[in-house]
Amino acid sequence: MEESEGLPRRAADGLTRRALLVGIGAAGGAGAMYAAMGVLGLAPSETTTPVPATGGASAPTPYVPPQRSDFALRGGRPATVLVLGAGVAGLACAYELGKAGYHCTVLEARDGIGGRSLTLRGGDTLSELAANPAQQAVSGLDGRPAAGGASAAAPTAPGALGETQRVGFGAGTYFNAGPARIAQWMVTLDYCRELGVPLEVFVNTNASAYLLTEGMRRPVRVRTARADAYGYISELLAKATDAGALDARLTQADKEGLLDFLSHFGDIGPEHEYTGGERRGFRVDPGVRPGADLGTPPPLTRLLSERLGRVLTMDAGYDQAMPMFQPVGGMDAIVRALAARVGEGRVRTGARVTRIMNRPDGVEVTIEGAGVLRADYCVATLPPHVMARISGNLGADVVAALATPVPMSAGKLGLEYRRRWWEIEDRIYGGATETDLDIGHIWYPSYGFHGERGLVVGYYNTAVDAQTYDDLPHARRLRQALAQGAKVHGPAYAKGILASVSIAWRRQPHIEGAWVSWPSRNGFSLLQRPAGRVYFAGDWLTQLIAWQAGAFESARKVVTELHHRVLKEA
Amino acid sequence: MEESEGLPRRAADGLTRRALLVGIGAAGGAGAMYAAMGVLGLAPSETTTPVPATGGASAPTPYVPPQRSDFALRGGRPATVLVLGAGVAGLACAYELGKAGYHCTVLEARDGIGGRSLTLRGGDTLSELAANPAQQAVSGLDGRPAAGGASAAAPTAPGALGETQRVGFGAGTYFNAGPARIAQWMVTLDYCRELGVPLEVFVNTNASAYLLTEGMRRPVRVRTARADAYGYISELLAKATDAGALDARLTQADKEGLLDFLSHFGDIGPEHEYTGGERRGFRVDPGVRPGADLGTPPPLTRLLSERLGRVLTMDAGYDQAMPMFQPVGGMDAIVRALAARVGEGRVRTGARVTRIMNRPDGVEVTIEGAGVLRADYCVATLPPHVMARISGNLGADVVAALATPVPMSAGKLGLEYRRRWWEIEDRIYGGATETDLDIGHIWYPSYGFHGERGLVVGYYNTAVDAQTYDDLPHARRLRQALAQGAKVHGPAYAKGILASVSIAWRRQPHIEGAWVSWPSRNGFSLLQRPAGRVYFAGDWLTQLIAWQAGAFESARKVVTELHHRVLKEA
Repeated sequence: MEESEGLPRRAADGLTRRALLVGIGAAGGAGAMYAAMGVLGLAPSETTTPVPATGGASAPTPYVPPQRSDFALRGGRPATVLVLGAGVAGLACAYELGKAGYHCTVLEARDGIGGRSLTLRGGDTLSELAANPAQQAVSGLDGRPAAGGASAAAPTAPGALGETQRVGFGAGTYFNAGPARIAQWMVTLDYCRELGVPLEVFVNTNASAYLLTEGMRRPVRVRTARADAYGYISELLAKATDAGALDARLTQADKEGLLDFLSHFGDIGPEHEYTGGERRGFRVDPGVRPGADLGTPPPLTRLLSERLGRVLTMDAGYDQAMPMFQPVGGMDAIVRALAARVGEGRVRTGARVTRIMNRPDGVEVTIEGAGVLRADYCVATLPPHVMARISGNLGADVVAALATPVPMSAGKLGLEYRRRWWEIEDRIYGGATETDLDIGHIWYPSYGFHGERGLVVGYYNTAVDAQTYDDLPHARRLRQALAQGAKVHGPAYAKGILASVSIAWRRQPHIEGAWVSWPSRNGFSLLQRPAGRVYFAGDWLTQLIAWQAGAFESARKVVTELHHRVLKEA
Repeated sequence: MEESEGLPRRAADGLTRRALLVGIGAAGGAGAMYAAMGVLGLAPSETTTPVPATGGASAPTPYVPPQRSDFALRGGRPATVLVLGAGVAGLACAYELGKAGYHCTVLEARDGIGGRSLTLRGGDTLSELAANPAQQAVSGLDGRPAAGGASAAAPTAPGALGETQRVGFGAGTYFNAGPARIAQWMVTLDYCRELGVPLEVFVNTNASAYLLTEGMRRPVRVRTARADAYGYISELLAKATDAGALDARLTQADKEGLLDFLSHFGDIGPEHEYTGGERRGFRVDPGVRPGADLGTPPPLTRLLSERLGRVLTMDAGYDQAMPMFQPVGGMDAIVRALAARVGEGRVRTGARVTRIMNRPDGVEVTIEGAGVLRADYCVATLPPHVMARISGNLGADVVAALATPVPMSAGKLGLEYRRRWWEIEDRIYGGATETDLDIGHIWYPSYGFHGERGLVVGYYNTAVDAQTYDDLPHARRLRQALAQGAKVHGPAYAKGILASVSIAWRRQPHIEGAWVSWPSRNGFSLLQRPAGRVYFAGDWLTQLIAWQAGAFESARKVVTELHHRVLKEA
């Protein structure tokens, strides 16, 4: 993660670090954000064991879950643990600790489990906070407003609810309102295997989908833009090579190798010119007769003015490359499987924590309207900006650390259409149209191919783009997104919609953000260690912010550390 | 399809046209073969309606299937039709004609339907011809050996069977021994929708799979090779731009656009140098701690010597781009659905046609050992080189045309493993490792993710590569393929195999080839027209040779023409 999305260059252009991090969310997706932190020197290197830069057998210690047998020879007993938050991190902690017989109770303020791993179906309701929580005061444990929390917001009671949407999707339609895709290397897949959650391919990139940037007159198919860009790049480089411009750098053998590569890569002709070809696609597809081509490629000048670099390389990242995966039937299959293993009786929803007290021999956690629970340990997996508002005795440095990461905006709109026009008319089966409009991506469903209805994600946007939708009521979000999508798909885009629902993660009760961004290294390291008997876990304490894999990795780390401590104290 | 796989350059290198076509099969897959024909001037333009080169609304006449109501006003009746061959083309003809009430009988020489759309499962048997049919005399209708059919083959009786493999796969394992993937734009998907055949994604390219060329010391992940190649290309082009080498071609605005593109595309640094990055992947994946990188990218000289162009651009073609699709449960779901619609009683398997006679008022078809069938019309969908050996009165020009296309070799090996090591250890979920070894590709299954067993395609090779396997007994094919695969996956590749089966399409009874290659334009046009009352259909008469879509498109064309004729004559 040395570089991402051309960050160093932009940073050198004088953008503020904050603006940079906010911008990355919009530009590169969540995955790029942490990469950017590395660039900016925010990576938590001091808490990590040194890893050799090169060489072979230095894989990290493989994770071994706590087991009942661990206690046998030591005469100890599994401890009791209060887990705050029934998102992926919390459920994973309870699940892993449960393997050794720990008695865990998971406390969740929301009505349902899963946290941001939220899948919406017909009959569900989705409530939002009345105002953007960015405009609410962030209070620390001492009751005073935290620095930076002041704003000119309308005086809305904190936590007051605004609009509630009732999801009207038909049977079989689901909408992953939070995480929607899993990369092959992520530990999330291991949990799917272990939990028996069936998988299918999530189409993250589709050559038949479209690109639309401000520099473009009209949307163009990914395959066409790709063929033209690769073709012209190859032509330019091959001709520069022919002209001797690279003689100082390349041997004759290098040049032959380069020209061989470019001939395949750019599909350029014998004179090294790019003139189009079948990779661009066809106006009329080949069949019995030859296909009819799309015409002449655009002139180089026009292509270069379209600023395709970002939208055409969305899948270049380590966390974005094809293929990606999704659980069959909805992302929440994972959290539901975890909760089933933990035991339904051990997860209490609607249980808002208002106070966390470290005591010499345990932890006391107060639940709003339901008294005080006591346990040997606590694992707190709430979002840090939410946790920072909970009273208790964790210490000012811990609270300051919790208040450091900045919650980020991201939003999604699910559109259920009466018919799958994108498959029938556009021949797009899954994948995303990438834009630099405020809607970000339009995603076509990777499930239910050829079904009657289908769910399109009308926007998945982040940061500044998401903020333009955050404070709108659903009807206005819908209107705005349909107007934007029509720039890709024409006026028919607004027709045939059976149901829709939108989410602004900054306005989700008890979550109040899509993910966080660390503006500085402060706090990240501190929170890797327990505050007394309280451990912290979540994607926000890893290199995989905004990924379920981050939550799982953090849970494994905390579970391992907690278990070692319990074994040692036994 | 103006160019493909750098053909013009190679042709200019002095290869023979035949060697070129053979070579393309190996290099670019079947899809590239027809593209090459276009380059060589073999595309059947004289039979096609002129299509404007540019412009908008010139879509081809949409296909309208024959309907019962077509006959109502004309007082005619649906004709009787003998369809030769129960592959995709034959079944599609019978299915489409059946919509209007035509009485079709489908005659299939093999024991089962589907032709090359063959899915093998546990309990199936697979017999091969005793010798490579390339070495058997090709006889025309006149009984004399066709030109080019002579060889130094061992004197094996034509049609004599050699080895029979019994497929030992476990329940749930299947192996698409023929076609395995469908592109989004292909008509095959429309038939899946119409027939209710459920689809899932076929992973054609996987960033986590490997590449291995002769120039490489060891296999490298696709993502790593891609990052390095794109990075160095961007560095070279950006630095050439910086040095003014492109000043004659590019304006200042062009240059800015180009450098912006290259910064995204190549992930190059502020000085335009490529030094690696997260796109390459990690030696230890990021989690709570930062990932450990793979070390320094290889020097440019080494990278260029590896000849990655072809293997890295396998998915650039219009027929290869991601995502692709497959029917759930096996490709033969399509032909089984077609046969069910046609009616089981209308498909006669084990019915080898030995004679085809045009009569003034009908067609007479002789079936070996089962007498003569008579019908108003015949649609012959057998492979042309097989049809050329059937006696009758189609005419010398027709027989010569049928004998023109050259049957090609392709082979596949299915390996059922006890455990899915490629998912667990290599973190490869579907997709292909591309090589320039004689095994061509190694395909990882796009179904059954996380299951207990799994089926790997140990080779899918074509042309010269396939020929090295064609004449081997299965045991030796297996041994050779495992030795090759071990170069990618190490010695463990040969372990844990529960069952295997291999197919050499040149040795399949009544098929005798994976597909055909047209060495000249002769014949292609003639066979687009009926010979008397006998029509010809198949992928081999389209621009989509080796694709099921070709068979469907050809069937639609012939059904339309036959129906118009019947309506006219009614």
